Amino acid sequence: MTINRIGLIGLGIMGKPMAKNLLDAKYQLGLFARNTKNTEPFANDNCEIYKSPSELAQHCNITITCVADTPDVVDVITGDSGIIHGAQSGHLVIDMSTISPEVTRSLAKQLAKKKVDMLDAPVSGGEVGAIDGTLSIMVGGKPDVFKRALSIFKVLGKNIVHVGDHGAGQVAKACNQILAAQTISAVAEALLLAKSSNVDPNKVRDALLGGFANSIVLDLHGKRMLENNYKPGFKASLHLKDMGIALHSAEQNKISIPGAKMAQQYLQKLVEEGNGDLDSSAIAKVIFNEIS
Amino acid sequence: MTINRIGLIGLGIMGKPMAKNLLDAKYQLGLFARNTKNTEPFANDNCEIYKSPSELAQHCNITITCVADTPDVVDVITGDSGIIHGAQSGHLVIDMSTISPEVTRSLAKQLAKKKVDMLDAPVSGGEVGAIDGTLSIMVGGKPDVFKRALSIFKVLGKNIVHVGDHGAGQVAKACNQILAAQTISAVAEALLLAKSSNVDPNKVRDALLGGFANSIVLDLHGKRMLENNYKPGFKASLHLKDMGIALHSAEQNKISIPGAKMAQQYLQKLVEEGNGDLDSSAIAKVIFNEIS
Repeated sequence: MTINRIGLIGLGIMGKPMAKNLLDAKYQLGLFARNTKNTEPFANDNCEIYKSPSELAQHCNITITCVADTPDVVDVITGDSGIIHGAQSGHLVIDMSTISPEVTRSLAKQLAKKKVDMLDAPVSGGEVGAIDGTLSIMVGGKPDVFKRALSIFKVLGKNIVHVGDHGAGQVAKACNQILAAQTISAVAEALLLAKSSNVDPNKVRDALLGGFANSIVLDLHGKRMLENNYKPGFKASLHLKDMGIALHSAEQNKISIPGAKMAQQYLQKLVEEGNGDLDSSAIAKVIFNEIS
Repeated sequence: MTINRIGLIGLGIMGKPMAKNLLDAKYQLGLFARNTKNTEPFANDNCEIYKSPSELAQHCNITITCVADTPDVVDVITGDSGIIHGAQSGHLVIDMSTISPEVTRSLAKQLAKKKVDMLDAPVSGGEVGAIDGTLSIMVGGKPDVFKRALSIFKVLGKNIVHVGDHGAGQVAKACNQILAAQTISAVAEALLLAKSSNVDPNKVRDALLGGFANSIVLDLHGKRMLENNYKPGFKASLHLKDMGIALHSAEQNKISIPGAKMAQQYLQKLVEEGNGDLDSSAIAKVIFNEIS
């Protein structure tokens, strides 16, 4: 089966630039967004706008979902007007949202009964990565299905890793999110120690960028912290959601990840105090004691 | 005053390759090591071996100290046969050990009374960085004294930052150490989450190396964890010592850095269980529950 039209569900911060990149790569697109306003910029492009996920799936042979949370993905795939009701045998659903690995495996099973393939393919790299087509894509699913989707992934991202079977992409993303959150918190503690010692935290960051403690978080988010500029980027409320997914998995797996738990509590505090729309590096505001 | 001879006190894992690099750069060296065996490889080189720090300081106009801990530095600088008793007015002491910022400031004051300058210049980059001359050097002290030492620093390292006044280099190093320890712990949690989810942690690391959660620690120490190879590198016992310095500073500054405290406890457990000579990335052994 050749790819005639790719469906894309969800035209938010991530989905919109991904749609643009697919159009630039000469793919024909079918679009659906619950917020119909989001499809308007695409009215004159090489796109068809559909009224439901199921209608979209009827007219496409691959559907990418890029929505906010686990229930949203469940709804667009298996809900009343979900993809599963329109997709024909051989259809491929690529879920690029960040959701529960467990629910991902369940959705893959339900789709398989209708001979519909599925890949979980969450991303890291944020809006900038989506715009530049440099996302890191972590993929779970069958190897031959991964191969089928690879040319699409190459339009959207750069570091594309087939991590394992269904759900493995989401597990990798959960790992990514707990590591990122803890690195943010650790950078904030380091800058706090510098400030409280009356040493210029900018100079300390410069010094640390050259050593073993260097990271993308120290570079990008450290700068945000020093400039007190928490314009997202990646919203604290979404990072909190992702930490919930990771900690739920940890609980099910009977492991203890107390560093992740601590970072989740910082995010929780941020969101509770009305700062959920700030970039998640605003964890520093809690650590700097700017939010009590 | 031109530099005729540089004294170097401490020929351990770090001091030895630093001495070699200074010799390669055509500096004349004066050496002292408490363990006299450590000076033997330099017997035929362009070196003088001295019997005490004070004797060494008499014959050099710059002395570099590179020893293990705060009391060692105090001893070689202000002890009975310390540098302070041999150094002439205009002598410069560069302490490249990792010690207390507070004690550093006190030593600088005592030396200043004898018109001896001091820089604190702890490093990051480990034995490999010392051998390759690519250390990150974090310097505290007066700007003109920093300038005087810069040509020497350029032989030893690459990222050389004048962080601030006396002690500021040590503060930066403390920040570096708490950030590194926490990043190690966060990487270990991420790999544990992967393993416990029956997902290949090697693939997860590959995926994360391309995204926002990437760091030198994920790259180098993540590999050690996956290979269960904790040959140092940088010993857990020394990292524990450095965490003690950082947490003592935090206490004095009345700030809370609970992530650093947690990482310190992991290192404490490692050392208590007889693993102090492993690389500090063996924090993962505690998190993976391999040490109970």
